[in-house]
Amino acid sequence: MRDDCWKITQFGKTPKLNNPIFIEGLPGIGNVGKVAVDFLIDELKAKKLYEITSYTFPHSVFVNEDNLVELPIVEIFYKQSSGKRDLLLLGGDVQPVDEISSYEFSDKVLDIVEKFSGKEVITLGGIGLAEIPKKPKVYCTGNTKKIISKYKNGLVNDNLYGVVGPIVGVSGLLLGLASRRKIEAVSFLAETYGHPMYLGIKGAKEILKVLDKNLGLKLDINKLDREIKDIEGEILKKTEQLSEVTKQAALKRLQKKLGKELDYIG
Amino acid sequence: MRDDCWKITQFGKTPKLNNPIFIEGLPGIGNVGKVAVDFLIDELKAKKLYEITSYTFPHSVFVNEDNLVELPIVEIFYKQSSGKRDLLLLGGDVQPVDEISSYEFSDKVLDIVEKFSGKEVITLGGIGLAEIPKKPKVYCTGNTKKIISKYKNGLVNDNLYGVVGPIVGVSGLLLGLASRRKIEAVSFLAETYGHPMYLGIKGAKEILKVLDKNLGLKLDINKLDREIKDIEGEILKKTEQLSEVTKQAALKRLQKKLGKELDYIG
Amino acid sequence: MRDDCWKITQFGKTPKLNNPIFIEGLPGIGNVGKVAVDFLIDELKAKKLYEITSYTFPHSVFVNEDNLVELPIVEIFYKQSSGKRDLLLLGGDVQPVDEISSYEFSDKVLDIVEKFSGKEVITLGGIGLAEIPKKPKVYCTGNTKKIISKYKNGLVNDNLYGVVGPIVGVSGLLLGLASRRKIEAVSFLAETYGHPMYLGIKGAKEILKVLDKNLGLKLDINKLDREIKDIEGEILKKTEQLSEVTKQAALKRLQKKLGKELDYIG
Amino acid sequence: MRDDCWKITQFGKTPKLNNPIFIEGLPGIGNVGKVAVDFLIDELKAKKLYEITSYTFPHSVFVNEDNLVELPIVEIFYKQSSGKRDLLLLGGDVQPVDEISSYEFSDKVLDIVEKFSGKEVITLGGIGLAEIPKKPKVYCTGNTKKIISKYKNGLVNDNLYGVVGPIVGVSGLLLGLASRRKIEAVSFLAETYGHPMYLGIKGAKEILKVLDKNLGLKLDINKLDREIKDIEGEILKKTEQLSEVTKQAALKRLQKKLGKELDYIG
Repeated sequence: MRDDCWKITQFGKTPKLNNPIFIEGLPGIGNVGKVAVDFLIDELKAKKLYEITSYTFPHSVFVNEDNLVELPIVEIFYKQSSGKRDLLLLGGDVQPVDEISSYEFSDKVLDIVEKFSGKEVITLGGIGLAEIPKKPKVYCTGNTKKIISKYKNGLVNDNLYGVVGPIVGVSGLLLGLASRRKIEAVSFLAETYGHPMYLGIKGAKEILKVLDKNLGLKLDINKLDREIKDIEGEILKKTEQLSEVTKQAALKRLQKKLGKELDYIG
Repeated sequence: MRDDCWKITQFGKTPKLNNPIFIEGLPGIGNVGKVAVDFLIDELKAKKLYEITSYTFPHSVFVNEDNLVELPIVEIFYKQSSGKRDLLLLGGDVQPVDEISSYEFSDKVLDIVEKFSGKEVITLGGIGLAEIPKKPKVYCTGNTKKIISKYKNGLVNDNLYGVVGPIVGVSGLLLGLASRRKIEAVSFLAETYGHPMYLGIKGAKEILKVLDKNLGLKLDINKLDREIKDIEGEILKKTEQLSEVTKQAALKRLQKKLGKELDYIG
Repeated sequence: MRDDCWKITQFGKTPKLNNPIFIEGLPGIGNVGKVAVDFLIDELKAKKLYEITSYTFPHSVFVNEDNLVELPIVEIFYKQSSGKRDLLLLGGDVQPVDEISSYEFSDKVLDIVEKFSGKEVITLGGIGLAEIPKKPKVYCTGNTKKIISKYKNGLVNDNLYGVVGPIVGVSGLLLGLASRRKIEAVSFLAETYGHPMYLGIKGAKEILKVLDKNLGLKLDINKLDREIKDIEGEILKKTEQLSEVTKQAALKRLQKKLGKELDYIG
Repeated sequence: MRDDCWKITQFGKTPKLNNPIFIEGLPGIGNVGKVAVDFLIDELKAKKLYEITSYTFPHSVFVNEDNLVELPIVEIFYKQSSGKRDLLLLGGDVQPVDEISSYEFSDKVLDIVEKFSGKEVITLGGIGLAEIPKKPKVYCTGNTKKIISKYKNGLVNDNLYGVVGPIVGVSGLLLGLASRRKIEAVSFLAETYGHPMYLGIKGAKEILKVLDKNLGLKLDINKLDREIKDIEGEILKKTEQLSEVTKQAALKRLQKKLGKELDYIG
């Protein structure tokens, strides 16, 4: 573990959480997971607990609406509710890209889940289709049959085999790595349009309905579209910025890489 | 050695093995080595001993037929046989791709061979041809003349010089690194069709015949095709998942972008 | 932190600096930042304090006008002025390219700023346009509103939001990482032509005017063009050496190869 | 320094060397340096002192004429001569490709030079032209004016500025890094044809003449062509094998890289 590459900053005191459910939604296909979790964080007025930055994140800063710079970050929020299980919510600007960083990040996140004696993890993501789906279906998979049947709840399709290829990135690794720690984990994946600049809001809504019903969140479904409208601008701005910088960085790295390979051949 | 990147989990007690022969067959050209070793593991009812995962493996999970997720893994099995030398069998979903990971992995595997006082290593692989071979020939090379003449046995061609380029990946490195530990190692390479989605079953059969004769395994050759049929579906599914989903689309999109951008940069 | 990858050599004794302002200008878009800082170093007769080399810099040496080889380096100079705040000036041949190196470098630089109890950082860079700007505008952003309003001074546009994507590399990271150390930081970015071989001298001049007024440097603006003329040759030589030799040929050769191979693989 | 990535094996006892000159010639443009040093090693019947392998070298093995596998290696030989300065000769199959490995390797080599109190380093390489040169010119550069004038000897052109871009790889870095250790270093670069499969024998001969005169080696120039004929086959075989594997590896890494970048964007 390259611990120096990761900085985790805590905000406020460590809360006592009641058997918390951990929910992850990072940028990915259609940003479906990110849109859903960002909505939950706003809507539930969750409190910020951790901020994660990393030397493995893009080496660039965003310029925000106040004309101030911001490092790319990932954040963990929590929401306490009397009489119900508490929530830990993970959202952010980026997700680690390469293999090692992605594994390291996922293990660090699971350390946090264990710190709060979390026993369940839910990851959210998209399934990229060639066209915009009219009514996106939600699928689920998990690391035990028990948690799948607990959460599928008549709302989702639990036969992903053959529907998607592997689940790439943190949404997938959290499930795989959690099972070694005896943490049950389930993933909800909504159909969306697989274009880089498409924001899978419809898919996110379907996932939010599933979460609402499963977790008894009493979300105001009518507020969804309005709220998401606000988030949309912000996300697309960053996505656009990020995709610009990533294109540039990708090209630069490609050039470097190609330079090297061919130097070597030549 | 980036030890944190490798997790080796043992299953059950450490068995006592009688002068074991270590046989490796990982994904590679035509998946010839993988098909052969997977068949041996099934057919010999070998017992699982180790499971290896790594931060250097793909950062994704598979969805299996039970709709449960699985991390990509490599496994080592063993087979004890009274009166004969025991076997250690290495198979898996992936093999490390980059230089450092491939060397690290091979050295870790040889540590295990030494732990069981193994003195012989056999690696299996394919030689990619431009066409599907009617009757694939099997070639062998090794790290001593002695082990080559011991195993070639009239069945294989021992003149690889000029036939193949270097042997890439774990199948090659195990031979090179073993010779420093005074472990003799031989590699059997069967001709196959060099297309990414082609499964070199015929080549694997030829290799299995060579192993059967050399090691006195008494494999039921008639069962081969049936058995391999089952393995085939599974392997192709994973290969397909690993190779197709993101790669193809990604490459196409990037090629377009590069077309423009590199003209400009270059 | 991979400390072995970084070598920082000090020249002479550690000076006592009076509340120093740290100014960074490394190669980047239009080399605007580099041109400006290199001019400041020459014009103010700043003294060399540190030389930084890194295993992450290009693995090659330049041949200079005296036919002697030079490793690619980054340098930090200082300028003491009685009655005014002192300056620390960072310039160099290269900037770290990949994520981790870029973060590591920026943190090492901020360590130096803190060593001299520096409280303000100024980074310089370019905004690449599709055409050569007649009269380049200068924009600024920062990590606090206070430092932006202190330095914008009627000379610059402080609304970068939407004008640029993220600020990539050291110029951006220094701002983001400084804010965690309670160091205020501002970035001046001048419009320039976004072509790799274009030298953004006009943009650099606009930035120098802003610095001159803000910091009371009393630069001889008439000398600028002459001075920059000298620097220009040197910079372009190195830029050309760095960018052209292998890159262009390499890319062309690879593109050809890829054309064929990827059709096959993909 | 990732020390685990490097294995240096010594052969025989440490010899006492008389003020040795270190000469490097690794694969590179036209393999000029490699051809020259391999000839010196054979012709002078130099003795093997060190064998270097590395996790950063290609993860593959060669198949040699005896049908045995060989890891890619770099070797250091020495030659003692009564009444003259002794020689250390560095040759090999590969050179480290990426930045960090190339710097690490060069520093490890200079450690060895210092171990034998070596005060002079000579590196050999090629300058790639667009056509096959009839009579290749030899250029030189170095890290002090003193060593250049000592060795140029009326035989070589000492004005490389503007003739080549940066000197990439070990041949360049050894010069740059040596100057920090107060080791003088010079590089001889012969013109050659810049095609990957071209073997710059003519250029190597010109360099050998320069070395012969400078170091009083009394090489049998008439033997050169014959000797080189033998080496040629071997080198081209490995070069071919290496260029095949590198092409494959390059493509694989490219695919991985592209996959990642686009996953991230997408």
